[in-house]
Amino acid sequence: MRQTQLFTKTRKEAPRDEESKNAQLLIRAGYIHKEMAGVYSMLPLGLRAIKNIEKVIREEMNKVGGQEIEMSALQDKNLWEKTNRWDDEVLDIWFKTSLKNGSELGLGTTHEEPLTNLMRNYISSYKDLPTYPYQFQTKFRNELRAKSGIMRGREFLMKDLYSFSKDEKEHNEFYEKMKVAYMNIFNRLGIGEQTYVTFAPGGSFSDFSHEFQFLSPVGEDTIYVDKDKKIAINKNVYTDEVLEELGLLKENMVEERSIEVGNIFSLGTKFSEALDLKYKDSEDNENVVIMGSYGIGLGRLMGAIAENLSDDAGLVWSKEISPYDVHLVTLGTDNSDVVKLADDVYTSLKERGVEVLYDDRDTRPGEKLADSDLIGISTRIVIGKKTVESGEIEVIDRKTKKVRYIPESEVQAGSFLNAE
Amino acid sequence: MRQTQLFTKTRKEAPRDEESKNAQLLIRAGYIHKEMAGVYSMLPLGLRAIKNIEKVIREEMNKVGGQEIEMSALQDKNLWEKTNRWDDEVLDIWFKTSLKNGSELGLGTTHEEPLTNLMRNYISSYKDLPTYPYQFQTKFRNELRAKSGIMRGREFLMKDLYSFSKDEKEHNEFYEKMKVAYMNIFNRLGIGEQTYVTFAPGGSFSDFSHEFQFLSPVGEDTIYVDKDKKIAINKNVYTDEVLEELGLLKENMVEERSIEVGNIFSLGTKFSEALDLKYKDSEDNENVVIMGSYGIGLGRLMGAIAENLSDDAGLVWSKEISPYDVHLVTLGTDNSDVVKLADDVYTSLKERGVEVLYDDRDTRPGEKLADSDLIGISTRIVIGKKTVESGEIEVIDRKTKKVRYIPESEVQAGSFLNAE
Repeated sequence: MRQTQLFTKTRKEAPRDEESKNAQLLIRAGYIHKEMAGVYSMLPLGLRAIKNIEKVIREEMNKVGGQEIEMSALQDKNLWEKTNRWDDEVLDIWFKTSLKNGSELGLGTTHEEPLTNLMRNYISSYKDLPTYPYQFQTKFRNELRAKSGIMRGREFLMKDLYSFSKDEKEHNEFYEKMKVAYMNIFNRLGIGEQTYVTFAPGGSFSDFSHEFQFLSPVGEDTIYVDKDKKIAINKNVYTDEVLEELGLLKENMVEERSIEVGNIFSLGTKFSEALDLKYKDSEDNENVVIMGSYGIGLGRLMGAIAENLSDDAGLVWSKEISPYDVHLVTLGTDNSDVVKLADDVYTSLKERGVEVLYDDRDTRPGEKLADSDLIGISTRIVIGKKTVESGEIEVIDRKTKKVRYIPESEVQAGSFLNAE
Repeated sequence: MRQTQLFTKTRKEAPRDEESKNAQLLIRAGYIHKEMAGVYSMLPLGLRAIKNIEKVIREEMNKVGGQEIEMSALQDKNLWEKTNRWDDEVLDIWFKTSLKNGSELGLGTTHEEPLTNLMRNYISSYKDLPTYPYQFQTKFRNELRAKSGIMRGREFLMKDLYSFSKDEKEHNEFYEKMKVAYMNIFNRLGIGEQTYVTFAPGGSFSDFSHEFQFLSPVGEDTIYVDKDKKIAINKNVYTDEVLEELGLLKENMVEERSIEVGNIFSLGTKFSEALDLKYKDSEDNENVVIMGSYGIGLGRLMGAIAENLSDDAGLVWSKEISPYDVHLVTLGTDNSDVVKLADDVYTSLKERGVEVLYDDRDTRPGEKLADSDLIGISTRIVIGKKTVESGEIEVIDRKTKKVRYIPESEVQAGSFLNAE
């Protein structure tokens, strides 16, 4: 993509009413647009970044046997009344609306009820289990306040997977697999080191649920971390009994602030009982299906990364998230040799399947480099008069700021990207 | 995907309250689930099919310079009041909801207002024009009745592109390009022959808008078609004057029923005036931006194809839409040679990037073939005892029912798919 064609531009200032650092940065860099508090539209760069996050999550969900679906946002009141979650006193984040005939509808905040109901069409025998539908779907949550940018939106993209298992054993095996899958995701997205599997309250069917907590001084949560064992405990269940149960020692635990970037939860038979989801076992006895839910908020994750991995100059994306593989920046578009070399590099890289944002604007070098820092693409290539003279191209890693000088031919071959 | 793993199953009957043929077929084949009238969830096969449609549309939109974004569903009342479209008397398909503090919000039925407002951040000079943002986004329309399955949903996926141009000339050039792009899409999706560019009412800024009408006896629209000139006129503007203006002769026009699968519309300055979207030209004079909108409802399109291209046995997808490239069906899973050969073919094809649904179920042959017809994957491969003996594999085209016998090795190499 030539930057002269990209319709967004960087901005010096975010809107005055935007309090969160993640949204300020993402708005200034042209990734998102604020529609109202807690509601953001994705602009070309932002959509590319979130689609990259989606791709990593999808690959890991498919690996554990997930089957992708996409459910509706509009929700049927009747289903939610069966679990007593229609009432605003019980679930206090509903957006509600109604049909022309007056029937009330809700906007989905999560999908246990409609999915459990849906699965009644497809689960009747032990042969139908286990099974793991998941989706990337827009959720709506009527938050009283929405001051955390895309980290706590009123409308946001979420990956939610639900497990349907025959018994506790089968459920637990999958639950453990998902812990690994989630850590794979966070590792691939470049935040594995700072992210901890965290014991959290379990509800009525399990001692614990598990959160994936990303350490951050601006996090809303408090957790206690054993850094050697790579394990954490949420403040809400941080007791001597739990420490003992988990074989952890109080003196090794460090208090940290953190952001929840994922969670997994054993639901037991709460929804399958209420909505009558049963199966016959091999001896023809009827049993209730055991369920689990596994969520990752993609906006939350993108916001947490934007806010915490950025530096003073702007956003810093890992390679897997970066909206483009390479930001190709020319310095001196009045020099025809510079333009020709940059055009050649742009074409060669594109032909090799490398995604390039090409800053071909006739703008001051300082401004171009500052914009490039702000946008935060993982690798930057700079071509100027010196490049043409030396035949070596400057390649900069956005995160480490490490500079390499690489012969033109190697850059055009695209091999330098893998060699990093 | 092994069919024993796929969580959906075919069903003999659709729900009794489902009146539309498209939804009946899609529900029976396991593509969609009905949540309520006009609201459907996408199951694995349905999601794959609609993503294939999305992919074709995306490629064609990118070719004409479109830039993909994704806007929010939640809508700010203030913006819609500026164009007088907030009032339910004016726009009678709103779903409305509200924040905890009582502020009213709407669910987007279309995005002219918020996008025009958004573009004020990025358009100020003639250098910023033209530009063409587009999105695949879930729309909400509070239809009084919803009896047409996924052809007229209350919640549905839509591609909407909006053009922002300096003047009429630039606008018209792009508008003509979009006519071609739309026909490319319909050709690629296998309905080009039955789809007509149709002159329709233009609103206050243009003599005509253009619809893309797909001929269908169950269509809601009436159009008049000149089949030789491949052009049509919507009943609403079918007058002697229009015929003359378009150089068409009444005696060549045939009345047809049809389904609108796309439309393009010149918006003039309606939204840019109301929302103050202006630019400075090269002489520093201020001008109002000229806009156009270009929509395709993906559910509508999928439903129209499901309903009209199906046959008595079930769905019939073109190669571009088909949820899998190949439906591999074994007859006689009790024969280990059959299973071994089928497993080998499955593995070979997958390795070559061919998407295969592998019916490895231990089910009667008649049922397997009937299910395969119902699901409608474009190419079927049948492996049975006879195959093992002859070394030739039966390959059937779902649409033409043409049968070919192809040597095992060629099937495993995947080359037969291109040779068709």
